[in-house]
Amino acid sequence: MSVQDDIVHVSVRGGELAGTLVSPRPRLPGVLMVHGWGGSQEQYLTGARELAALGCVCLTFDLSGHVATRNLRETVTREDNLGDVLAAYDFLLEHPMVDPARIAVVGSSYGGYLAVLLTRHRAVHWLGLRAPALYRDSDWDVPKRDLTALQNLAEYRRHPHGPEENEALRAASTFLGDVLLVESERDRIVPAPVLASYRAAFAHTSSLTYRMIRGADHALGTPASQQAYASLLTQWLEEMMLGARGHLRARIMRGRGGSAPAATMPQH
Amino acid sequence: MSVQDDIVHVSVRGGELAGTLVSPRPRLPGVLMVHGWGGSQEQYLTGARELAALGCVCLTFDLSGHVATRNLRETVTREDNLGDVLAAYDFLLEHPMVDPARIAVVGSSYGGYLAVLLTRHRAVHWLGLRAPALYRDSDWDVPKRDLTALQNLAEYRRHPHGPEENEALRAASTFLGDVLLVESERDRIVPAPVLASYRAAFAHTSSLTYRMIRGADHALGTPASQQAYASLLTQWLEEMMLGARGHLRARIMRGRGGSAPAATMPQH
Repeated sequence: MSVQDDIVHVSVRGGELAGTLVSPRPRLPGVLMVHGWGGSQEQYLTGARELAALGCVCLTFDLSGHVATRNLRETVTREDNLGDVLAAYDFLLEHPMVDPARIAVVGSSYGGYLAVLLTRHRAVHWLGLRAPALYRDSDWDVPKRDLTALQNLAEYRRHPHGPEENEALRAASTFLGDVLLVESERDRIVPAPVLASYRAAFAHTSSLTYRMIRGADHALGTPASQQAYASLLTQWLEEMMLGARGHLRARIMRGRGGSAPAATMPQH
Repeated sequence: MSVQDDIVHVSVRGGELAGTLVSPRPRLPGVLMVHGWGGSQEQYLTGARELAALGCVCLTFDLSGHVATRNLRETVTREDNLGDVLAAYDFLLEHPMVDPARIAVVGSSYGGYLAVLLTRHRAVHWLGLRAPALYRDSDWDVPKRDLTALQNLAEYRRHPHGPEENEALRAASTFLGDVLLVESERDRIVPAPVLASYRAAFAHTSSLTYRMIRGADHALGTPASQQAYASLLTQWLEEMMLGARGHLRARIMRGRGGSAPAATMPQH
């Protein structure tokens, strides 16, 4: 672990003592979270706190056209939002605690689509997708909100597609990291053929974890389905980022508690 | 591990995205390092960096009467310097990454004496002493530099003493934490009877690690003896603070390096 020196001044009796504080600068995995169309950073905040407690740095943010920039909702394009994701990725990578060699990107629906496209531009080691959406490559600079009608997406998503005809699937087909793919059983927005297309396209990944949440709709409209997804995501990231010994590391970082002497430390 | 939320703003295309960065706030052991009379914080700086790399926060500082405050050298008392150590301890404890339940104090010679006295005023869990000096209790408000002659210290240190007659030994006799006691074989300033007195006084410690550095003088005048002490200190603190699995934790914190997928992670 790298360390840093900080010159400090300790107040004493009206004067000061010169000191040096030497502290570790841990390098931790970074997790970028990309919400779907109509969502917000809030959705991933609870999950981000859970993951941070395991020892990673998480960034959740509002895509252009949402919350503070909702006035852009009618005009924002996929190009714009991919630019957002790139900027957020670069922001996370610059954090002093983040290990650039260990970056996870997590996205839902439209955010999942953007996350897959990101892998063509930036190094992503772990890719967690829930109900990733799919669009035709055409009309790249048309406002996103017009695509549903313009591209007849409901029809497009009823059929399987392949990397040869779709940029996101092409990105999936060349992705070499680890993938989590979560499907909602009763998803009418991103139906089964889209998930099947992604699953088939992820042919060269280091690992693939595919799960279906039974009874769930696209938006995870019930607490039970939200909890199911949160558990899946946390367990997968814990396995990926921390390895099987993650629980041990967490235990050590928490410390032994109190001032129990080393001699009586439980032997594991 | 506790986490913290930071509201962030990601620049993109001349505008800004609202985001939340969620990061862990690890609670790490703290180590306070107290140099001897005539020394400085510099002496412990290399050691502090080594220890910080293992995952603790270290504070090394200049005692009053040294370096920037050397003009106080003729007048500074044990009372003053104990006040320095108390202030430095409190400063370290306030660091957001420091776990107040896991504090080590390390001191050499006069710094060791002060470290032992500190245990009467503050919670110390691990106490690392190299050639801890010993003074008569009397003359507490006399300048420290006058004690050698005034107290005929050379004579005082030639004989064993007990907790019933000496405040530092009394502190040692009631200390319940873990102790490292390092003796220099050829120490003429703090000779063998002083070390023997401390060793006997530390009768109720959770653990005692006594080591002699063969051939070493009081000041550790050779690189070999300095290295021997550095190794002893690091190994002892690693054992005390991180437990036997410390190496594993360090390995996980460093990460797996590169983008090797989880599936090929070595199984330990």
